Amino acid sequence: MGSLQALIQDLVIANRILAREDVVDAYGHVSVRNPDNPHRFLIARSLAPELVGPDDIVELDLDGEPVRDDGHKLYLERFIHAAIFAARPDVMAVVHAHAEDTLPFGIAEATKLRPVIHSGSFIGANVPVWDIADKFGDTNLLVTNMDQGRDLAKCLADNNVALMRGHGFASAGRSLIEVVRMSVYLPRNARALLHAKQLGGEIKYLRQGEIDARNRGYSPYSTETWRAWEYWANKAGCSHMLTKPDAHGHDHKHDHKK
Amino acid sequence: MGSLQALIQDLVIANRILAREDVVDAYGHVSVRNPDNPHRFLIARSLAPELVGPDDIVELDLDGEPVRDDGHKLYLERFIHAAIFAARPDVMAVVHAHAEDTLPFGIAEATKLRPVIHSGSFIGANVPVWDIADKFGDTNLLVTNMDQGRDLAKCLADNNVALMRGHGFASAGRSLIEVVRMSVYLPRNARALLHAKQLGGEIKYLRQGEIDARNRGYSPYSTETWRAWEYWANKAGCSHMLTKPDAHGHDHKHDHKK
Amino acid sequence: MGSLQALIQDLVIANRILAREDVVDAYGHVSVRNPDNPHRFLIARSLAPELVGPDDIVELDLDGEPVRDDGHKLYLERFIHAAIFAARPDVMAVVHAHAEDTLPFGIAEATKLRPVIHSGSFIGANVPVWDIADKFGDTNLLVTNMDQGRDLAKCLADNNVALMRGHGFASAGRSLIEVVRMSVYLPRNARALLHAKQLGGEIKYLRQGEIDARNRGYSPYSTETWRAWEYWANKAGCSHMLTKPDAHGHDHKHDHKK
Amino acid sequence: MGSLQALIQDLVIANRILAREDVVDAYGHVSVRNPDNPHRFLIARSLAPELVGPDDIVELDLDGEPVRDDGHKLYLERFIHAAIFAARPDVMAVVHAHAEDTLPFGIAEATKLRPVIHSGSFIGANVPVWDIADKFGDTNLLVTNMDQGRDLAKCLADNNVALMRGHGFASAGRSLIEVVRMSVYLPRNARALLHAKQLGGEIKYLRQGEIDARNRGYSPYSTETWRAWEYWANKAGCSHMLTKPDAHGHDHKHDHKK
Repeated sequence: MGSLQALIQDLVIANRILAREDVVDAYGHVSVRNPDNPHRFLIARSLAPELVGPDDIVELDLDGEPVRDDGHKLYLERFIHAAIFAARPDVMAVVHAHAEDTLPFGIAEATKLRPVIHSGSFIGANVPVWDIADKFGDTNLLVTNMDQGRDLAKCLADNNVALMRGHGFASAGRSLIEVVRMSVYLPRNARALLHAKQLGGEIKYLRQGEIDARNRGYSPYSTETWRAWEYWANKAGCSHMLTKPDAHGHDHKHDHKK
Repeated sequence: MGSLQALIQDLVIANRILAREDVVDAYGHVSVRNPDNPHRFLIARSLAPELVGPDDIVELDLDGEPVRDDGHKLYLERFIHAAIFAARPDVMAVVHAHAEDTLPFGIAEATKLRPVIHSGSFIGANVPVWDIADKFGDTNLLVTNMDQGRDLAKCLADNNVALMRGHGFASAGRSLIEVVRMSVYLPRNARALLHAKQLGGEIKYLRQGEIDARNRGYSPYSTETWRAWEYWANKAGCSHMLTKPDAHGHDHKHDHKK
Repeated sequence: MGSLQALIQDLVIANRILAREDVVDAYGHVSVRNPDNPHRFLIARSLAPELVGPDDIVELDLDGEPVRDDGHKLYLERFIHAAIFAARPDVMAVVHAHAEDTLPFGIAEATKLRPVIHSGSFIGANVPVWDIADKFGDTNLLVTNMDQGRDLAKCLADNNVALMRGHGFASAGRSLIEVVRMSVYLPRNARALLHAKQLGGEIKYLRQGEIDARNRGYSPYSTETWRAWEYWANKAGCSHMLTKPDAHGHDHKHDHKK
Repeated sequence: MGSLQALIQDLVIANRILAREDVVDAYGHVSVRNPDNPHRFLIARSLAPELVGPDDIVELDLDGEPVRDDGHKLYLERFIHAAIFAARPDVMAVVHAHAEDTLPFGIAEATKLRPVIHSGSFIGANVPVWDIADKFGDTNLLVTNMDQGRDLAKCLADNNVALMRGHGFASAGRSLIEVVRMSVYLPRNARALLHAKQLGGEIKYLRQGEIDARNRGYSPYSTETWRAWEYWANKAGCSHMLTKPDAHGHDHKHDHKK
């Protein structure tokens, strides 16, 4: 299997995992940068992630326009992905979703979402909240053009996650596996913090040094990382699509460079 | 397939989706106005929505009485549907359900349910709470006659959703797909607001202009709307019953008229 | 099928429903009075309710002792059932369970569990909390003899449900279907009240007149009651065991006597 | 089947149960001391517990090193198990996991996790919170060497459970069945306490005498204990792996000695 085919397979798995783990429902999407052409990325056509197969993957450029016109309807919010890939050369994969337990932190202004559990460390110490109304006034809240996408990417800056007020979040990772993992544990971290707040008293957030230590130790194809990917793929009913890391030519090399 | 047959099929799908998404359990029901005769509507006989098939659909008039007497037991609360269809010519479909997470907002008087997330915008800016006791005193809380149904419809007025104190809600939409979607996201919006309240501080509700913008952009057979319908039908195990929008003669035309 | 065989079948269904609806897990049990001999009742041998079949049903007397010694291990807490059947000739079926969301109301003394939703009305206006420690001091919290059972039954008095502090609840109904329904909606009512409290402000409980009106209208084999039983049996994978109400000789007559 | 084979089978069941009951996900592990050599214990190679089979079980010594080098990748945090087995000769089985609802009690310092429900009694009256940062400063929060393991074991002391701040918990039992049961009911006890706190007012914790009474009555192969093991194994799809208690030579004798 060529490395691009392996990557498309992984993107399908990512779609299914995010659906099975309740990060996305009919809405929400995940994309990966084309390792052979950093000015392009792969994403599904307009379809619920649970139903995505290899033939549903399309290639878009960094303006969110399709590279080939094959008549597919596209996600209205593909500009989130295009703008983040354009602004952040280090980012290889992006998720946008409406995971329910992240929503309260975009709505209640007083409480900032921060890592409190080790599996939540990858969201990073700072999770900005982007409010589309600040710049664009009354909209349907969707990011439907590059201007809005760029404004969101600017708010994200060099963080890993931005909450979107009344809407959801965008997360950016160094690999598909990383961004999926971050997106699965983000709502869990949110719930842990919400419930800790309800218990009252002082909250022990992860320390900056702990976040840094975890980040330094992260490797997208380590045994530990693969363990979760394999587990989630199995739960999502697509373990038969798993390709061993060494099948990932480009991606694999990239992952071990840091 | 005739357009009425397609509509009955859709009504069966709507029943199954609402069951699968925990909006209804053994109780709760969904109805659709007969596009060929606006003085009649289709609804299941007295049966748990999960178990409803095409042969279980009956036709009632706007007094809640069956058009044909085929000996079926009917839902006690069919008057909710009859009264709303009578009062609201713009409404094509109605749901009544007891979705758990909507209940607290009918019980706790201090907090008003309002849209806080984009998928909740369709419930509208104003969600009145109807208390059957206000006019009818001590009842079994069920809407079992036209008088009670009309009082509920009056409280609903031209809103999309009315909460029913200690009981559930009634929602009204321009199509089956719209009312199902509204009913699925209503409890999610309720949970997001409940949890945001627990985080404390000021709540950022959707702005009126945002609610209006989303409403203006809504089309019951757009790619985005269809995506959710297809996804939910698949989860509910009845994707084989899906009929493409262009099979919907009447309904389809109606949907695009506005 | 004889009426006792039909009742045993129903008792198996009740076990499976309570397991499927998370009212019981490995622990918890349901019993039904022998309609041919009111001094005896039917209950499973010591086995997780989900795994109970017709051959696992044993017959006990009102001291909790087996009528026939067939060597089966029995539930340690069978005395809950024996004592309630002995004290309450009107009761035909009993559930004891640890349903998670009822527990907080036995632990937090300040808030009384009361009906707030129509499906919760059958728990009755007054839900006493029994604390085994009040009379028996330091125990393992289990009701393991008739003395303890009788003390619980005394606390229950003529109510339908008693919470057991740090342990669970006992519920008593006029039929198997009624006690199962009450036990399924009890945790739902508890959650609705907990969440309403979190929203703050005044709580609108069901009015006494509403509870009475619902109770007066209840019939264990009405279309509405059967609808839920059929739905839950189907979810629990045992709809093939359902016997139509008219197969229930004794039980049926009893149910319509009131 | 030899007693070691039966124990390995039980360890596989334990892995599957903990996965099915949401105590572990891709991460978390369970181990059992080798009854024939108390200086060694059995645990899976680095693999998600849900996917563990008999061939994935490896044997480690009390420094966390493999007895045989068969090239398997090992859990990074195996030192938790090694250190607890080394410090506590009475402990026969250990679980480490990140069960979500235990996390808030490690993060919010004000509220101590204590038993409030009878099934939670086995966590013991005192549940210390271990903060890796107290001694080791900024780490990735994982217990990756014996020093850290020993510090955790020291904090656990002769208790049954230690919470690990921002990370999870470690629990220690007298048998596999006991430690699994404790780990399943620990999050339930945590939720019951969290929700009771939300109801407000004074909390009725289990009394010390009650915890003691329950502990005295515990027997790992009683009918009641087996009932839960059988139920959970069935839910986890591995009831075919169950071996009756009398197949457990060593383990069985040990269990009844106390």
